[in-house]
Amino acid sequence: MIKGLSQVGGLYQEASNSNDNQFYLFEDIPFYEASKDKIDLALDQAALAFEESKSLSPQQLARLLSNIADEINSHKEIIIQTYQSESHYGQGRANGEFGRTISQIGTFVRLLEKGQYLHAKIDHSTDATPDLRKVLVPIGPIAVFGASNFPLAFSSAGGDTISALASGCPVIIKGHPFHPATSELVASCMIQAVTRSNLHPGLVAHLHGADYSIGQRLIMHPKLKGVGFTGSHNGGKALFDLAQKRSIPIPVFAEMGSVNPIIILRDKLNSDQNLANQIAESVLLGSGQFCTNPGLIFIQTNDSQHSFIQDFINKITSTDINQFVHGDIHKNYVSKIQNLKEGIPDLKLYQSKSSLGACGVVGIDQLHRYPDLIQEVFGPYSLIVLFDDYQLLTLLAKEFPGQLTLSILGSRSESNTVSRISDSLGHIAGRLLFDGVPTGVVLKSTMTHGGPYPATTDWRFTSVGTDAIYRWLRPITYQSCPDDLLPETLQDSNPLGIYRQLNDVWGIH
Amino acid sequence: MIKGLSQVGGLYQEASNSNDNQFYLFEDIPFYEASKDKIDLALDQAALAFEESKSLSPQQLARLLSNIADEINSHKEIIIQTYQSESHYGQGRANGEFGRTISQIGTFVRLLEKGQYLHAKIDHSTDATPDLRKVLVPIGPIAVFGASNFPLAFSSAGGDTISALASGCPVIIKGHPFHPATSELVASCMIQAVTRSNLHPGLVAHLHGADYSIGQRLIMHPKLKGVGFTGSHNGGKALFDLAQKRSIPIPVFAEMGSVNPIIILRDKLNSDQNLANQIAESVLLGSGQFCTNPGLIFIQTNDSQHSFIQDFINKITSTDINQFVHGDIHKNYVSKIQNLKEGIPDLKLYQSKSSLGACGVVGIDQLHRYPDLIQEVFGPYSLIVLFDDYQLLTLLAKEFPGQLTLSILGSRSESNTVSRISDSLGHIAGRLLFDGVPTGVVLKSTMTHGGPYPATTDWRFTSVGTDAIYRWLRPITYQSCPDDLLPETLQDSNPLGIYRQLNDVWGIH
Repeated sequence: MIKGLSQVGGLYQEASNSNDNQFYLFEDIPFYEASKDKIDLALDQAALAFEESKSLSPQQLARLLSNIADEINSHKEIIIQTYQSESHYGQGRANGEFGRTISQIGTFVRLLEKGQYLHAKIDHSTDATPDLRKVLVPIGPIAVFGASNFPLAFSSAGGDTISALASGCPVIIKGHPFHPATSELVASCMIQAVTRSNLHPGLVAHLHGADYSIGQRLIMHPKLKGVGFTGSHNGGKALFDLAQKRSIPIPVFAEMGSVNPIIILRDKLNSDQNLANQIAESVLLGSGQFCTNPGLIFIQTNDSQHSFIQDFINKITSTDINQFVHGDIHKNYVSKIQNLKEGIPDLKLYQSKSSLGACGVVGIDQLHRYPDLIQEVFGPYSLIVLFDDYQLLTLLAKEFPGQLTLSILGSRSESNTVSRISDSLGHIAGRLLFDGVPTGVVLKSTMTHGGPYPATTDWRFTSVGTDAIYRWLRPITYQSCPDDLLPETLQDSNPLGIYRQLNDVWGIH
Repeated sequence: MIKGLSQVGGLYQEASNSNDNQFYLFEDIPFYEASKDKIDLALDQAALAFEESKSLSPQQLARLLSNIADEINSHKEIIIQTYQSESHYGQGRANGEFGRTISQIGTFVRLLEKGQYLHAKIDHSTDATPDLRKVLVPIGPIAVFGASNFPLAFSSAGGDTISALASGCPVIIKGHPFHPATSELVASCMIQAVTRSNLHPGLVAHLHGADYSIGQRLIMHPKLKGVGFTGSHNGGKALFDLAQKRSIPIPVFAEMGSVNPIIILRDKLNSDQNLANQIAESVLLGSGQFCTNPGLIFIQTNDSQHSFIQDFINKITSTDINQFVHGDIHKNYVSKIQNLKEGIPDLKLYQSKSSLGACGVVGIDQLHRYPDLIQEVFGPYSLIVLFDDYQLLTLLAKEFPGQLTLSILGSRSESNTVSRISDSLGHIAGRLLFDGVPTGVVLKSTMTHGGPYPATTDWRFTSVGTDAIYRWLRPITYQSCPDDLLPETLQDSNPLGIYRQLNDVWGIH
């Protein structure tokens, strides 16, 4: 079932010796990079598919997503097997991520069935104004770049792809070269679902490759209308810059991670005995390879021997964390830790002898001297920073780069301080937490997985939760349009039975 | 009352001889360009004002807008006088635009009073998920560049400024150098309204100047978070490009006009005797200085003597249109018409002898040879294009640059063709019309005044109608936040009484 070939127009594309370079081998199967003609074909096919998909009803799109979930479910065994061989993640993580992928599809199916997300609005004509009707419509073919750290939930059938398909946009998936076989397998399930749904085969394509030129050609293609990306700052920023240089610029939604600061006030620190363990577990989760991994923990104490620190170090250095999703991430992690160790003499660094976990401890005054301390170290590492005056911390943190999350933990008696910090730092993050840990990004419409640059390239959107669909939609207004020429979403009889605004009142009418 | 000085922090800023250049004279009052220190001060003040304005309730913001409308209303006489002296527009237009400016403010007041635009959503905690609450919040200080063609409705207190203030964002207005006195007057009304509302004086600033460097310094300032612009392609694109090159890119909403094609099918053309007049009036409205001015009219006939053409030419060349808003626009218009005349021998050009109106007539085959024909000529000019086969037209128009509007006019018997054209060309515009003319942009939530690039830089938003507020808002999620630390919009008791989503159900709860 795994062929090592890109899939375009519903078909595996044979590699030609002269054009396609082998870049990977999996169980003796050679994998080939998508050549230019295959990239262009994917865009041509996607543009054709869009002619059909732009008019699909939410119900038809929901059916497509359900079929995708079915196909993936019916290939669970081989997907889980391949995932484990390619990723070095264990069975538990594999099953967890598989479940999240399926349930993510389910949340979009429910969104589509309700139809309110289309923001359909009708204003009947008056003496002074014409009949005006507005609805959101898909923008066109989207490129999705699979993430290295989520071979399932943020790759072929991950949040970016599923939200784009839910909107009615065709998707060209650029599989991540760290897990090409898993990526191809899941994509082939999606392509089968497209066939089973009797939809245009150009709706989903999957391109293989490790060379940057593939992404560049994709981004610059005139038929492409948007981009979803989850990964490193360098990767995301490069795509963003390219897209703005096009003769017609297009939106790039790059989620580029952050250090997700946690601030713990004195009373909370001294009274919650379980806090160190809870946060350390969040740091170690998935070997620390989460975008919402807490990498910076401010604790309000002058005591560098505080029990929180001891407990945290113990947990981090005694837990058995031995595998990264990929060797390259492992290498980067080790080298970043080494650089911190050598470059910052005032940093106390604690490392497990037999495992990967690590943590540092510094005083807040060091953050000014060493801005490297607040850079993301992707992996099971976190930095504890001791502070005393919360106002000084707030002043410092105000200039922090944008974050996906910010956690402010205080006891009930510290409410006022929590409130002041939240007021002055609310602008640096997309999600503010007042209890718990930032890992565990819930798939709801109330989720914001986004934040100010450089956490993402556009903080007005989210890449997790059902609101992720708004990245791929734009409004269109129909003025004085005869009822039978309107899309079903805007017809007088409301044939789809969706929630709409009629002369300023919302309801199913 | 008019001083020729920039206003920052609620105060007129005295010009210093060494820094501020005089660029304009109005009734013997010299006007000075804002020096660098005044631009920087405006941003510093705006950032301070944002600390307050980001937490204002919709009701408080509505009060501010109402006060602005009151102040402007109470200075109506001098504003209308100044407007007429500066713009060359007559009394009727002055009053019309004044009325639109006031009623635009009113639509935002009503939006704020309802509160639903905030998209407040609450998901209570479950066994598996934490309490999550999401609401839209303002993004920060916004620069608004006044438009040349609307000294009131798209300048100091125009759609961009009012939508930004409604969102809770401070605004730095860069007045258009074609009408600095009107711009300053209206801005001073706004600043008085800020004082009357007891709000931070940094909330509204007004900068004078004709030099590009002022806009450049504004755009590159680290405290600026977004930009609204209405004007030429060159101006808008330059601001967009600059903003993307910042170390932290910011959104630029530039509305850069378009030719707003009208397609008239055979039956409609032959049966609607009033059509030529109606469209010609739309072309001549405001001396043709509207973004939605129809500049390209496709008629389904081979008869170059068709009565539509005769009627259209008659109307265009016999109507008395003698004034542009500003001499520079006049000069541009004359030179563009001259270029068409000299550059395109196959174009039949009809010009009024005593007035400004002009129109051209060509066959559709000429559009391929002379792409200049589909460029915007800002003013009372339009091009009639004869076509026969609607499918050929559709094929050609599919590659058109993005448009604000597209009108498809057919009789009832031509419904099928209208529907096919709408299906294949819907992607080129933000608003599709099936009757009437594109000028007259209604101030409703169902309006889309936006469109694919190059009509605007971001087709997912509108610059007219209440949805314009979404350009200045971004989501924030509160996770596990104690009720008393939440913003009022998300507190359990719903103290503001706004429409919210509670566990997936919308209502006032």
